[in-house]
Amino acid sequence: MTEYTVRFLPQDVTVEAPAGALLSDVAQQAGIELLMPCGGQGRCGRCAVLVREGTVNRRTTQRLGPDDVALGLALACQTTIEGDVVIEIPPQEKIERKIKEGKRAARVALPFPYDLHDQPLRAFAVTLEPPSLHDQTDDWSRLRRELARRYNLRDVCASLGVLARLGKALREGEWHVTVVVELYAIDRPNGPPRIIDVLPGERLESLWAVAIDIGTTSNVVWLVDMISGEVMAQAHDYNGQIARGEDVISRIIYASKGNGLQELQGLVIGTLNRLLAQVAAERGISTTQIYKAVVAGNSTMIHLFAGIPPEPIRLMPFITTVNQLPTFPAREVGLAIAPEATVDCLPGIASYVGADITAGVLSSGMCSEENRLTLFLDVGTNGEMVLGDCTWLISCACSAGPAFEGAGVVHGMRATAGAIEEVWINGQTYEATYRVIDGVKPRGICGSGLISLLAEMFVAGVIDKSGNINLDLPTPRVRRGEHGPEYVVAWADETETGRDIVITAVDIDNLMRAKAAIYAGFSVLARSVGMSLADVEQVLIGGAFGQYINVEKAIQIGMLPDKPFDQFHFLGNTSVRGAYMALLSHEMRQRVNEVGEKMTYLELSADNSFFDEFNAAMFLPHTDLSQFPSMAALLEGR
Amino acid sequence: MTEYTVRFLPQDVTVEAPAGALLSDVAQQAGIELLMPCGGQGRCGRCAVLVREGTVNRRTTQRLGPDDVALGLALACQTTIEGDVVIEIPPQEKIERKIKEGKRAARVALPFPYDLHDQPLRAFAVTLEPPSLHDQTDDWSRLRRELARRYNLRDVCASLGVLARLGKALREGEWHVTVVVELYAIDRPNGPPRIIDVLPGERLESLWAVAIDIGTTSNVVWLVDMISGEVMAQAHDYNGQIARGEDVISRIIYASKGNGLQELQGLVIGTLNRLLAQVAAERGISTTQIYKAVVAGNSTMIHLFAGIPPEPIRLMPFITTVNQLPTFPAREVGLAIAPEATVDCLPGIASYVGADITAGVLSSGMCSEENRLTLFLDVGTNGEMVLGDCTWLISCACSAGPAFEGAGVVHGMRATAGAIEEVWINGQTYEATYRVIDGVKPRGICGSGLISLLAEMFVAGVIDKSGNINLDLPTPRVRRGEHGPEYVVAWADETETGRDIVITAVDIDNLMRAKAAIYAGFSVLARSVGMSLADVEQVLIGGAFGQYINVEKAIQIGMLPDKPFDQFHFLGNTSVRGAYMALLSHEMRQRVNEVGEKMTYLELSADNSFFDEFNAAMFLPHTDLSQFPSMAALLEGR
Repeated sequence: MTEYTVRFLPQDVTVEAPAGALLSDVAQQAGIELLMPCGGQGRCGRCAVLVREGTVNRRTTQRLGPDDVALGLALACQTTIEGDVVIEIPPQEKIERKIKEGKRAARVALPFPYDLHDQPLRAFAVTLEPPSLHDQTDDWSRLRRELARRYNLRDVCASLGVLARLGKALREGEWHVTVVVELYAIDRPNGPPRIIDVLPGERLESLWAVAIDIGTTSNVVWLVDMISGEVMAQAHDYNGQIARGEDVISRIIYASKGNGLQELQGLVIGTLNRLLAQVAAERGISTTQIYKAVVAGNSTMIHLFAGIPPEPIRLMPFITTVNQLPTFPAREVGLAIAPEATVDCLPGIASYVGADITAGVLSSGMCSEENRLTLFLDVGTNGEMVLGDCTWLISCACSAGPAFEGAGVVHGMRATAGAIEEVWINGQTYEATYRVIDGVKPRGICGSGLISLLAEMFVAGVIDKSGNINLDLPTPRVRRGEHGPEYVVAWADETETGRDIVITAVDIDNLMRAKAAIYAGFSVLARSVGMSLADVEQVLIGGAFGQYINVEKAIQIGMLPDKPFDQFHFLGNTSVRGAYMALLSHEMRQRVNEVGEKMTYLELSADNSFFDEFNAAMFLPHTDLSQFPSMAALLEGR
Repeated sequence: MTEYTVRFLPQDVTVEAPAGALLSDVAQQAGIELLMPCGGQGRCGRCAVLVREGTVNRRTTQRLGPDDVALGLALACQTTIEGDVVIEIPPQEKIERKIKEGKRAARVALPFPYDLHDQPLRAFAVTLEPPSLHDQTDDWSRLRRELARRYNLRDVCASLGVLARLGKALREGEWHVTVVVELYAIDRPNGPPRIIDVLPGERLESLWAVAIDIGTTSNVVWLVDMISGEVMAQAHDYNGQIARGEDVISRIIYASKGNGLQELQGLVIGTLNRLLAQVAAERGISTTQIYKAVVAGNSTMIHLFAGIPPEPIRLMPFITTVNQLPTFPAREVGLAIAPEATVDCLPGIASYVGADITAGVLSSGMCSEENRLTLFLDVGTNGEMVLGDCTWLISCACSAGPAFEGAGVVHGMRATAGAIEEVWINGQTYEATYRVIDGVKPRGICGSGLISLLAEMFVAGVIDKSGNINLDLPTPRVRRGEHGPEYVVAWADETETGRDIVITAVDIDNLMRAKAAIYAGFSVLARSVGMSLADVEQVLIGGAFGQYINVEKAIQIGMLPDKPFDQFHFLGNTSVRGAYMALLSHEMRQRVNEVGEKMTYLELSADNSFFDEFNAAMFLPHTDLSQFPSMAALLEGR
């Protein structure tokens, strides 16, 4: 096949590639990072590059105008080379590496009194009789014999990796060693005990493990001292897969192409390994001293982490390959802790109600509150929700989409420095004031800012109950822009970018759809069990985004049910907390499985009433104002 | 560090290496194969190279004369570079790739009536209810549910690798798949059943497995059709580790240096993978259709195969790290069969009585012969022997050394084309006649030829009972050579090499030591249980070399006990046959473990009587002629 030369600027890297090669593949091969939030589907337009010289073939120019194409722009994921080319890569948006930079994570309290014996990880010191010409018993039998005699540990097993280190450890320790053992596991409740490591000498002073949450957006690692049960270090970072797709659907599509699955697995493992190195360094230990990992995450994230193709998750009828993975040694996925450390992925129950939700329900405590009807909500890229009490649970997932994470909104962005996180609009002048994360000049609006903005616009009358912008208002902030009607939140001279920050009619429609999907989910869940949202006694909100929601504003736009504020509780990252609890106690670990078994999953796409509820919720706050009495009173008083 | 240029001729390959680098390492780095039968200890002299230009430092010049050094010769494994050098590699002895080339392996008969249900490997065809929006059960639970319902298979488990292929197989097969399962294993006798593969559609027509023997010298693979139990293809080749050491001790030393263990593991796996490809090709299947491997071999070979450091095996008090390995999936060692195929290494009982012997005892049938005192002998690089009947077994290993495999003997060679395999000496003229393998011009003498030669020399009076050559004989064949007294077996004009083929006094001493060690082993074994060799009712001889021994000659030199020929039985490769039997039947597999448990191991180096017996056996045939009545009669008649 004909090979062409592809030169990338400004990096000035030149590689050879065959005719017909995709520019995004060639860039990757050249080691050049290109953001592809849509996973290379040509939908997001973020991978646009400038063709400076040579001939290319654009499969699609979606997201590019005729002027853009005339200038030489092309979507790297949709463009093939047809000769020697010179490609200029525009500056790529840098993902902020630190979430809440410089802010020390809060100390995590023990969720319940901890007892080492409630969980299966142990260290035992043993002294063996040295071998002699008259006792030539092999090392492995000698160790097993002593473990049985001294600790009544029977049928202990070990992998080739442990056996390969055994001889050296015994001789280095002069027949005195410490054996790290997992006595049982969730899928091996009756044992046999499995040796995870053999260390020369006595090493009983510490025993480490980690709780991990793999979010679509963020990954979290908690380092746990298994002697005390305390969380000794925390670290979090964006999931390295983000550049290959913002949401789970984009990731699934990316995983289904070429080497995509291995690449995505490598990216998330890479992120986790960095976080593991970080927490280990903070306590001055080696990551290979970490002997167990309990992992929570949504079903797609768990599939990608374990290297299992997630394709069926996005295709009718939306099936996961496996909800409860077997436990497996860390080496099998390349997690850089002790090679034989058990990785225990918590169970999900459906394609869109994963282990993050079962773990969340466990840590929310909703299962242990007697007869208190609870609504549990995890707002992230998807909106997953669970209704129930200690005796029953029903769940669903509504594809709210990533609008609240800043995608699908022209000036949307993640909740990092420069994001407008709260907005106030004057009801007389329609002037806006706002608060920006870290107090810098604004660059965009994050999820909580968007909720706040939508509520303020509605209450001030900038938009009507259908979300239409009133272009007749006597203010220059309301205007007809390039993409239709829009409202100016910040003027160019106030912003970091030097451009107006606006919200457009299209943005508003996307946000309305997102909030309507969430509320419709609540309604359908309640209705499916013959109840109404009025019966709900408390609303527990989990998820990283959840904790920043302004409940008052969220009720005003009809995203959350209209209840007294004291019935709402923000729980933070319930997923990692659930993993932590499951790590501390085998009973809690079993309870996650019970949550999964107890939980009914309602597939909204197979439920006709969802669409009715969704349409009814596509108003501000709702077509049925009687469901929002406080808002009715406010509008009345206006 | 200073880097120098090392150029190799005649390959004309040039590489860079730091000052002080070992020539053998540099050659390996340059991809140049150098034979190092002693494992790089500077003992064998086979890695001698010619330094054409530049400065080197010879650590030792053992095996090289002053003239050799003056010519520029150096041992690659003992020589470091001290500047830019040009090195000439002499032609390396090629290992014949085919043992018994062109000879079709004999058909192997079923050792007992075979029943598929006697062993744990199975294939099940299942048809699953396709998922729908109303049954979103995950693929894995769906499959388990059906396996339980249809076949009463409960708690079935699978690895990540199988789960990663599951979704695709189910959809490709349109919810109709074949599941390959191992119901139980030797270390998991009560299950749970483990899925090894999932294939789309119904694939019940075949089910393949292999029996493997890893010898220090040769590796053997038998491909077994698990439906019929028949051996459908056989392949064997030299163990790829040979170039890194002829005997187990050299290999252990090599494994203890740098990356030696990984290298040796890679070499034997490489050999096995070639053999697997060969047997698979012969039956027109893919190696990934092979779902199980039962492996026999001596303890060092099994350690190296599994990647476990064998170092303690050669150090007092001679301990293995593990006699019974856990079963493990083939992917863990890189064996190129189905990645999840179970590899079951049979148990050894000591450093020098390995799985080749327990398997050998099983296949010899000596355990099932009621009250028939049997001596089982495996002559290979070591001489392992077992004495006993159906109720007791006692074993030992004597380091006979590789003399009978051609090492330590000037014109010794392996039993391939060009090897003298039998010799006759005329008692009057002292002229020799001989038979050569494949009828070509001779290049050397193999083990059976050496036994025959020693016996003939003794009977003809060329050597006395101490093995001393009679230099006074009226024949030019007896002479004083470069290395002392020698006997010419073949004159230069008859040979392939154009040089005389001789046996020297040193060679004779080596052979005497080897045969004395073996006979002393027999004597000590019998004596340790209060018996004598005269009580032995049959002698079973296993091992590849064993089958070529001429019993008459072996008795004449006092290597085998003096018994009627009909009490000797040659069993061929008992090790691979034992592995094959263990593969066919779980009961047989258990019996190998019972053999191991029943067998007492006698450590000869801790037994004072061994040295007495050894010294007594350092005569032809023995100091105590009463133990060799037939030989006494022959000598009498002379």
